[in-house]
Amino acid sequence: LDSGDAGSLRSVFQDHHEADVAQVLAALRPQDTLEALRLLEIDVRATLFGYLPPKIQTAVARHMSRRELADIVSAMSHDERADLFKKLDEKERKTLLPALAQAEREDLRKLASYPEGTAGSVMTSDYAALTPDLEVSKALSELRIQAPDSETIYQVFVVDGERRLLGAVSLRDLLLARPGERVGDLMTTTVPRIAADQPREEAARLIARYDLMALPVTDDAGKLVGIVTHDDAMDVQAEEATEDFHRVGTVRNLDASVSEASIFMLYRARIAWLVLLVFGNVFSGLGIAYFEDTIAAHVVLVFFLPLLIGSGGNAGSQSATLMVRALATGDVRFSDWGFVIGREVLVAGLLGFTMALAVSPLGLLRGGVDVALVVAAAMVLIVLMGGLIGISLPFILARFGLDSATASGPLVTSIADAAGVVIYFSIATAVLPFAVTS
Amino acid sequence: LDSGDAGSLRSVFQDHHEADVAQVLAALRPQDTLEALRLLEIDVRATLFGYLPPKIQTAVARHMSRRELADIVSAMSHDERADLFKKLDEKERKTLLPALAQAEREDLRKLASYPEGTAGSVMTSDYAALTPDLEVSKALSELRIQAPDSETIYQVFVVDGERRLLGAVSLRDLLLARPGERVGDLMTTTVPRIAADQPREEAARLIARYDLMALPVTDDAGKLVGIVTHDDAMDVQAEEATEDFHRVGTVRNLDASVSEASIFMLYRARIAWLVLLVFGNVFSGLGIAYFEDTIAAHVVLVFFLPLLIGSGGNAGSQSATLMVRALATGDVRFSDWGFVIGREVLVAGLLGFTMALAVSPLGLLRGGVDVALVVAAAMVLIVLMGGLIGISLPFILARFGLDSATASGPLVTSIADAAGVVIYFSIATAVLPFAVTS
Repeated sequence: LDSGDAGSLRSVFQDHHEADVAQVLAALRPQDTLEALRLLEIDVRATLFGYLPPKIQTAVARHMSRRELADIVSAMSHDERADLFKKLDEKERKTLLPALAQAEREDLRKLASYPEGTAGSVMTSDYAALTPDLEVSKALSELRIQAPDSETIYQVFVVDGERRLLGAVSLRDLLLARPGERVGDLMTTTVPRIAADQPREEAARLIARYDLMALPVTDDAGKLVGIVTHDDAMDVQAEEATEDFHRVGTVRNLDASVSEASIFMLYRARIAWLVLLVFGNVFSGLGIAYFEDTIAAHVVLVFFLPLLIGSGGNAGSQSATLMVRALATGDVRFSDWGFVIGREVLVAGLLGFTMALAVSPLGLLRGGVDVALVVAAAMVLIVLMGGLIGISLPFILARFGLDSATASGPLVTSIADAAGVVIYFSIATAVLPFAVTS
Repeated sequence: LDSGDAGSLRSVFQDHHEADVAQVLAALRPQDTLEALRLLEIDVRATLFGYLPPKIQTAVARHMSRRELADIVSAMSHDERADLFKKLDEKERKTLLPALAQAEREDLRKLASYPEGTAGSVMTSDYAALTPDLEVSKALSELRIQAPDSETIYQVFVVDGERRLLGAVSLRDLLLARPGERVGDLMTTTVPRIAADQPREEAARLIARYDLMALPVTDDAGKLVGIVTHDDAMDVQAEEATEDFHRVGTVRNLDASVSEASIFMLYRARIAWLVLLVFGNVFSGLGIAYFEDTIAAHVVLVFFLPLLIGSGGNAGSQSATLMVRALATGDVRFSDWGFVIGREVLVAGLLGFTMALAVSPLGLLRGGVDVALVVAAAMVLIVLMGGLIGISLPFILARFGLDSATASGPLVTSIADAAGVVIYFSIATAVLPFAVTS
């Protein structure tokens, strides 16, 4: 490959999938990647270029002539070229646009205009569409014409003269229909659809729920403006899961993959929550300070502190994790909070009781009957409280319009810790005699 | 719908997607669901039945006659009927099997035989296949014949006389080809494939990476035994993400969705880790007990305990979360551990330094210069240590063949806590004079 001759590159290309070739090209210097791309026909070149990571795309684009970039942009699929366009700086955009045909220019501007995170931002405008009055034979020849410029011709959308979405018909149904039938008779009208300004994860959810190949995206007037395809939905689903994962681990949005993130990016994504949580922990410290006399009188109590407040935090992390994911996948809805919290009282109560049994022997061993009772009672209450904080926090956050995934394990733990300290030492102060020092 | 007459059900059906109708039917009593299904044609009935949740499917199946069940099973897609078959008990299977045609019986047994979690367990055997010598026009009429019984005819696999996988051809390419061309000339041979015994998440990863509609599954001899379709891959991807989410939140595999899980199921999924972690916390307690004299001499130190060990646990949770997800998505590979850990030393070092600056004023305020120095030094070391534990544990677990997602926040926190106690009080014991009590 490094010798760069056309023959050997083409043979590599024949033996490997475009995605794999692109991965190899991405590791070269941008000018070498460009040299290699130049040896290929424009369609293949555009496909390969589309598989390159965004960063590499822009780096390679910077080595292209204006004409060269315009050619590859014209040949790319509409959503991929819009993504590239968004990554270019103002000057580069201004150089590129005049080199494109008017229709492409407008399409590019339009697609790039949808805010990140919306269905519009992940849709593509190169869909196949038919009118309802077409006969099947005509429809099939029309699809052959649309095929080279369409992302998919397997799911075809039916629109009226003003591009309003009327229904959908699959290529399978067209192939199996009698030639005289009309598209309008074959189409199904119960087509799931989404508005362009809805969240992109909702588009992915609809595609998963209805097993779709492509989801039509409409504007306010019900006009078809694009489609979200199954492969893009899969990427969205994975990216949203990663974001939630990070959020639950108190890592704020990292603008790169973990493997590519710089030290500073990682630092920035992590520091805010760490500092915030440390001041949350001050409340635990204040709680401990408040009970300093009890602690001084019974230093043995400190031994049980980590395992009691740890258990509250752990039970809380468990229920928060369950809720955050269930809310994200749509398994549990906001309106289910009553049922879910009621069930948690029973589950966490049982968990707390089991945990109290598990630690009582330790209490007896190190502190005698009194301490064992204090520890057991505190354990039941702390686990119950932790579970309830963990299960409620995602709902409370959602209620105030925040992302429920912000109810991270560490946030729940930090709140549960402070509450745990108060519960534990309150019980201890009430039960244990003050005169006795252990 | 509850009146159950065919006309009104059909009209409901025309206005709604099958998945939505199935959701309504799933809420009825099994015998009512069956009554409603009986009003529909067999193909529609099978589709709707396939959309019902597994639990409801078996409940409804129990009300069917043997003939009725055999009919619906014959009409279902092959992967869905295999899933249903796996859910039936031994007696029900023995009743069903003789009512099926020989080929269906064998197909069902074969598909149901792949262990859960493998590519084989999520594949379907109703794929479309062609031989390489077919001319395009013949291939198209052959596909029309295969269409009603195929999950997809858009991605067609090319096999030899012994069903060995030779390549793949898309319906789009067949439609655009000249009638005289042969399938063998049109097919691409760089087809990603997977062995039936590979993990199902690997199948989903390949489908996402190569933007596939269907991934062929082969046996040891390279023969095509089934395909995994894009919609099933999306479900697998979501389920695997949920499993990892739960594992990171120390919830063991829950055999139901969170909304459907019983109190006992939730209890069982959570108790093991809670108990395990509480005994992990005993080490923190022992650490504290070991330094009882230092604590008794400087009770003020206890105030800083939660925020110091909390910060170590939080930094560890962050890096563990980043690694678990990056390893699961393939963003980071096992072999990258050297680079990743090296980078973490720098990131966690910076984080620790910032955190030390943030808490020093508090140290000064409550304990004076000596305590502030002890707290600051402990903070740098504890955050660094937490970050390193969090980043290394997923690799260490993977090294020993365990799931890296077991490196949960709570497990990392529990280890970091114990280490944090030792670091903090060791520094304090070394630096602070023993005579002075605060």
